[in-house]
Amino acid sequence: MGLTVALDAMGGDFGPQVTVPAAVQALLHSPELKLILFGDLSAITAQLTLLNKLNHPRLSIVHCDSVIANETRPSQALRHSKGSSMRMALDAVASGQADACVSAGNTGALMALSRYVLKQLPGVERPALISAIPNRGEHPTWLLDLGANVSCDSDTLFQFAVMGSVLAEQSLGEKPRVALLNIGEEEIKGNDLVKRCAEMLIQSPDINYVGYVEGHQLYSDKADVIVCDGFVGNVSLKTSEGVANLFIERIKHAIGRNPVRRIIAKWLFSELFDGLQQLNPDQYNGASLLGLRGIVVKSHGSADTVAFANAISEAVYEVKRQIPNKISDRLEEVLLERHY
Amino acid sequence: MGLTVALDAMGGDFGPQVTVPAAVQALLHSPELKLILFGDLSAITAQLTLLNKLNHPRLSIVHCDSVIANETRPSQALRHSKGSSMRMALDAVASGQADACVSAGNTGALMALSRYVLKQLPGVERPALISAIPNRGEHPTWLLDLGANVSCDSDTLFQFAVMGSVLAEQSLGEKPRVALLNIGEEEIKGNDLVKRCAEMLIQSPDINYVGYVEGHQLYSDKADVIVCDGFVGNVSLKTSEGVANLFIERIKHAIGRNPVRRIIAKWLFSELFDGLQQLNPDQYNGASLLGLRGIVVKSHGSADTVAFANAISEAVYEVKRQIPNKISDRLEEVLLERHY
Repeated sequence: MGLTVALDAMGGDFGPQVTVPAAVQALLHSPELKLILFGDLSAITAQLTLLNKLNHPRLSIVHCDSVIANETRPSQALRHSKGSSMRMALDAVASGQADACVSAGNTGALMALSRYVLKQLPGVERPALISAIPNRGEHPTWLLDLGANVSCDSDTLFQFAVMGSVLAEQSLGEKPRVALLNIGEEEIKGNDLVKRCAEMLIQSPDINYVGYVEGHQLYSDKADVIVCDGFVGNVSLKTSEGVANLFIERIKHAIGRNPVRRIIAKWLFSELFDGLQQLNPDQYNGASLLGLRGIVVKSHGSADTVAFANAISEAVYEVKRQIPNKISDRLEEVLLERHY
Repeated sequence: MGLTVALDAMGGDFGPQVTVPAAVQALLHSPELKLILFGDLSAITAQLTLLNKLNHPRLSIVHCDSVIANETRPSQALRHSKGSSMRMALDAVASGQADACVSAGNTGALMALSRYVLKQLPGVERPALISAIPNRGEHPTWLLDLGANVSCDSDTLFQFAVMGSVLAEQSLGEKPRVALLNIGEEEIKGNDLVKRCAEMLIQSPDINYVGYVEGHQLYSDKADVIVCDGFVGNVSLKTSEGVANLFIERIKHAIGRNPVRRIIAKWLFSELFDGLQQLNPDQYNGASLLGLRGIVVKSHGSADTVAFANAISEAVYEVKRQIPNKISDRLEEVLLERHY
């Protein structure tokens, strides 16, 4: 059985220079995968020619006249999206031509267009952006929402917990531990939003709710799914990247340009550098929009080839596990439970 | 001229074991400083005896019968605070016996008691917790609010910007660059709270407002003062600590127990370790409660002697610069400007 992913080949800081080599890499990695590249035909073929993959049997190209710029507002993107690579990739999912869409383009526009083109699953108020982050344990932690919703109510936050739980369960094989991100572990801490959602989660037998976690516990393997509103999640994820980059910069600076130091550092600390690589957010590239009638994966705008290929893998993973159906089923169960 | 600081000797994870040696260190460091230690007389004298400083001429002790526990709710702390070390240290500031109070105790209780005992400055809606964090530049960045207020309106956020600006200006010697923490740099990004506060800051000639910063820019020297609500600030600061600890742990693990590796690592990375030390939040220990009619410095609960001594230094610094008066004057000017 085939599995088709629609790529917005023009999105991100580097466009086809990154998306096309990543596409070729992904095809090599997944023998059942077919890709449709949406974007400027000549730019895409130029890259494919460079890679000598112009006639790959599992790759097709659909020419698009326009690209949604990074600075375009979501409302404008909605009005002027026709013919753009992002819109056409999403249309391919809506029409059933593709099973998932991957884009490194404008996040706000992707959110707005995804909702408009694909629509939410029944019972979902707002889709959420989720991503895996590294921690001290064996499995990563899933954090949501990462910025799709700047303000939420407790019902929305509760739905995020359900959706995140479904995605994490697929790779854990058991009920994931779900926590709320808060400013203290004690019951009395936090704002009303978090407290109300905690009450809902405690009463929900379908969710393995483990309580509050604080910012420093994001990386501690205390929970598999950590839920917060999009403002807090976005600040928290980006803060992490900022600190990680500061450390990596200091380490590089310490080793310096001296070749002897470099060789000794590599010999002594290869393990460390591999470890730091794991903390690199690119390793975990591919944030998913959960709650839609279709699979949409958002790549970092600054993703390189490896990172964008990871985003394609995430899409393949979710298609194989039919995440939207599973979310829909689970939400129905949970909402029934809450009402009866 | 004397300068007296009241210490809650019982607060924090270690109580007198840390606060007493830190007090002795601070007295050594500042020849004009006098300290009053509030807490259990026998526990304090036991520590002073160990240090052979029982009769230090600039150190006095006031016995207190009780301690406010870490798990005490602020409302309970208010009702049952009489005779506690934290309350008596704050009372000493209110009565003019001391110029500032330092405590490593329960943050919520310290906030509530400070407001109750010292009262806010005229025009201040809510005090804010501020701390300096390291960055790539020469000076640290001041981040507020760090958790004193779990929900704010735009007026409160605006006042935080004014108060943070006053504190930072004292050490910069020039108008600090003030930014709002947001989930994007573009004007259209963020929630209503942040957008409304941005409008107020743009219109305020007295503040050098430089726009939005994102989480990863906290450590980038883009701004001297970064303003956000207490929920976001607390999560962001604690997330930073979590990532920093993860890195430090990995580095320690890579070096391991092998003595040869340790020596080579020290030679290779002495500069790095100095750099990491700078990233250690303890180096910047001492978050101040701004907006009160008095100076209150909150130390980390887990602070060691050096860190707690840093918190005392922060209090001395603020007393010398009369920060509450300066905040009061500035707020008056800014509010006049806004109304005329």
